[in-house]
Amino acid sequence: MSSGRFITLEGGEGAGKTTQVRLLVDRLAARGIAAIATREPGGAPGAEDIRHLLVSGDTARWQPMTEALLHTAARVEHVENLVRPTLATGTWVISDRYVDSTRAYQGSAQGVGAEAVLALHDLALGGLMPDLTLVLDLPVELGLARARSRAGGEDRYERMGAAFHIHLRDAFQAMAKAEPQRCVLVDAAGDVDVVAARLWSILASRFTL
Amino acid sequence: MSSGRFITLEGGEGAGKTTQVRLLVDRLAARGIAAIATREPGGAPGAEDIRHLLVSGDTARWQPMTEALLHTAARVEHVENLVRPTLATGTWVISDRYVDSTRAYQGSAQGVGAEAVLALHDLALGGLMPDLTLVLDLPVELGLARARSRAGGEDRYERMGAAFHIHLRDAFQAMAKAEPQRCVLVDAAGDVDVVAARLWSILASRFTL
Repeated sequence: MSSGRFITLEGGEGAGKTTQVRLLVDRLAARGIAAIATREPGGAPGAEDIRHLLVSGDTARWQPMTEALLHTAARVEHVENLVRPTLATGTWVISDRYVDSTRAYQGSAQGVGAEAVLALHDLALGGLMPDLTLVLDLPVELGLARARSRAGGEDRYERMGAAFHIHLRDAFQAMAKAEPQRCVLVDAAGDVDVVAARLWSILASRFTL
Repeated sequence: MSSGRFITLEGGEGAGKTTQVRLLVDRLAARGIAAIATREPGGAPGAEDIRHLLVSGDTARWQPMTEALLHTAARVEHVENLVRPTLATGTWVISDRYVDSTRAYQGSAQGVGAEAVLALHDLALGGLMPDLTLVLDLPVELGLARARSRAGGEDRYERMGAAFHIHLRDAFQAMAKAEPQRCVLVDAAGDVDVVAARLWSILASRFTL
């Protein structure tokens, strides 16, 4: 049996990743391709426990390096307990965030260094990378306005200030540019259906659907 | 102002570390040397939040690498928020556990590898090591019997089985032997006062008290 494909959606707050992950899974299913939607931080029971420490509370509650380690810890639970076993059965995995978020948020915007984040990723997960990463790009003000309209108290990163989010967007754009084999930068400013069509056409150009 | 000394107590469950840390701090204070008692995992507010994930619940709740990352994350909070600032004021820091516990528990007994744990320590904390490490050594059965007589639900590591604890003791003994400049193996099987006298004489031989 061949391995499933591992696809990640990345980008700042309010870029529409969660919605687009769901739409991709549905559209793959309609083609007869088994796929699951998952997310980081989280996606496995222990990882969700760690998520709670990261997405709520005071913006300054952790040292940046602590935050990089906690995200990596949650990622190990997610990858070893869900992602790898699922891919091994031939099912595709579509994840809302993965290591590129840690590179952008902690590595770049919080100052840990992108190299340190990748060194952690190598040590903890043998450097497992997705087959394809869709980077949803949106003007910062638009993304934050969308994010603030959501319910729930998981807004710790949203509260980190405009400069932080501008830095994030720059970091995601730079990653997409530096790794064109794996990453595609996608304009996420349009309607949900328009963005979904863009993402689907990228998948269709990369994989046999 | 000269830096305080950083001293760690290590060893398996029930070795008497917590009691001996307190006695050392008291005896240093009686000599006019300011010292604080602290512990890992924990010792700072965020680190105590992470501690809760580690010391309670099912013995198999985490991947071993996740556990190494969580201990390292808690250590960053402890070191950057408490240990380094305290040492900088000239006050001594006496810690119940530090990186050697992660080397023994996760690196050795849980199979992550001692090298991986040290690589994490270098990346996260610039490899900060104590000035002196006192390794409290005790037959496994005796330590577990003592540990089980304690109150509280923080017994996740105690429940890990005899083979695990035998492995731990071997790992601590091997570390003490490999790093004689920093580590001293101490027989912890006697009365509290007898062990305290042994530890104090080691301090007296190493530092001006």
